[in-house]
Order: sequence, then C-alpha cells, then structure tokens
Amino acid sequence: MHGVERTAGPRVLTVPEGDDRERLVCPDCGYVAYENPKVIVGAVCVWDDRFLLCRRAIEPRRGYWTFPAGYMELEETTEAGAAREAWEEASASVTIGPLVAVYNLPRISQVHLIYRATMNHAHHAPGAESLETDLFRWDEIPWDALAYHTIRWSLMHCAGLAGATDFAPRGVPETGDSLVE
Amino acid sequence: MHGVERTAGPRVLTVPEGDDRERLVCPDCGYVAYENPKVIVGAVCVWDDRFLLCRRAIEPRRGYWTFPAGYMELEETTEAGAAREAWEEASASVTIGPLVAVYNLPRISQVHLIYRATMNHAHHAPGAESLETDLFRWDEIPWDALAYHTIRWSLMHCAGLAGATDFAPRGVPETGDSLVE
Repeated sequence: MHGVERTAGPRVLTVPEGDDRERLVCPDCGYVAYENPKVIVGAVCVWDDRFLLCRRAIEPRRGYWTFPAGYMELEETTEAGAAREAWEEASASVTIGPLVAVYNLPRISQVHLIYRATMNHAHHAPGAESLETDLFRWDEIPWDALAYHTIRWSLMHCAGLAGATDFAPRGVPETGDSLVE
Repeated sequence: MHGVERTAGPRVLTVPEGDDRERLVCPDCGYVAYENPKVIVGAVCVWDDRFLLCRRAIEPRRGYWTFPAGYMELEETTEAGAAREAWEEASASVTIGPLVAVYNLPRISQVHLIYRATMNHAHHAPGAESLETDLFRWDEIPWDALAYHTIRWSLMHCAGLAGATDFAPRGVPETGDSLVE
C-alpha cells in the first residue's frame, strides 16, 4: 500500500469473477484478500469527574495519551470491544454507556465508534500497551500530549453531554483537521 | 470457518510474534490474514411517505425484499457507502440523513450502520443485485417477505422517528430474535 513491494501472499490487483472491483489476489494460491474498513472501538471512561487516560507504550504515538481504544475483534460487539480495550490497556472494569461518536477516516479506511463509559471502581493500571494510566480532571487533561485528534474530539463531545443519553453520535468536526489524523 | 478445509492461502491458526491471539496464517508464504468484523452500511430511503425496497437477485435470501445495504468498501465513509449501495442496488440518488441504528451481530462478526435517507427524486430501477425495486407505503410493505430481521427493525425504528434528528441510534431489540439473523 505504501511503496513496499510484496513478494508473497495476496499482491496482484485483479477483479475476481462475479465481483465488480479490483481485489488483492495471491498469484501463487488464488486466495482473494477482501479488504474492508476496520472498526476501531474505544471508550471515554469516567470516574466521578475524572477521565481515564493511558500513555501509549507502542508506536505510533508512543508516549502520548489516549483513552482505551483499538481494533474490534471477531465475534464481539462494539460495546464488548470497547470494554475489552479498557481492560487490556488500563486494567479498568467499565460499564459502557451511550455512543458518543462515529468518526469516519476514509483515507485510512477506519470507522471509530467511541462510547462513554463509567468505571465500576477507581482501580486502573497499565496493561502491556500502556506506559502508565491516570485519572485526570478536565483542567488536568494533557491536551498538548494527546495521541490523536479523535481523542480530543471525543473528550470535548463528552464534556458537552453530561447526563444526556438520547443524542446522535457526533462525527468528524467540520473544521477539517481530520486530514492530519 | 464452516467445515470447508482450505488447501491454499491462510489456513493455519497460530499466534503471530507480538500478537496476543490466534490469526490465520499461510504456511506457504507467511502471510497473516488479520480478520476483523465487517461493516454493513445501509439506507432506509424515503420518498414522501413511501419506502424504497429492492427484491434481492442474489443469494442469500434471493427473492426477498431489503433496503439498499452492503459491505462498506475501503476509502469511503459510512454515509458514502450507504449512498453508493442505494445507487448500485436501486439506481436511486439519495441524501443521507441521521444514523438510525447500529446493529451488532457478533455471531457473524458484522456491524450494521443504517441511515435514514431521502431520495433526491422519485426515480429508481433495479441494479445488478436486484430483481425489482419499488416504493411502498407503510401498509404496503411486504413484512412477510423481508430478507432479514435487521430490515424490519430499521423500518420500524424509522417509523417512530419522523422528523427527529438528534437521537441515539437503536440497537438489536432485546426480544432476542437476533439469534436467527
């Protein structure tokens, strides 16, 4: 996809029989790698008036802060995936609440589904993908050290939603800074 | 996945280095097929008080009625995908409105994002995947010949939402008939 030439596996673009667009096919074995957008699930986890953030231990954006989020896995729901990420990245037990945002990032073929969640107790601790975890009051959030725009957008959305449950999930802001995501 | 033994391509379950769960790997070339849930995008398309439905020309559920929906493709947004499906399956030009539903179907690793849409004009015609297309008033909808439960749920949700825009998308009803989807 980015200039690296594959020498094995699906690497030839062709239109499979019965399809209407090019797919990546392995010329050695005929396997068709249907590629579709990936779903990222995440949770803005709240304990009282504090927000749970994790400092990333892995690239990209190592050392920067995020809330728990990651690729949705097979055979789980979006809510279960968001709760799993909170457990894996921050050892936090959470109850998933309303859907805060649906962010389309078509340039990287991702759809982010971000939930608000309440922590079931105050415990948190870094998982394998986190250097540290912490609870931040609003004015303590490390705004300049957040890993992604989507993290900031989600936190901002949550701040304006206190107590609400029946609202449309927000999308990418129209200010256009999605382009640097 | 369903009893068919693969003889080529990714077919061995193993945990790749640096990963934490089993993935399907090709023993011939080493390719790792990361599989994640697929996103289905769809649109309940409305023209005045009528709903656009397509009779499926392909299996599964050939001959049954659906609104335009299908797999989201790379490098598009969920809204663009839903509009594309309306165009491909029903030759309908639509304007995508609010997100009506997010249906998690973990047993088949799918997430359905269903929008309400308004048709830009009354024209519709079957695409390659449809036997016919038609506009139905509410009491004309072929309820007993709908292709999937998700189609019925989405239509029902839309009926209760006339004019609303700021509402939480609905999920799978708690009556549990998702199990037969």
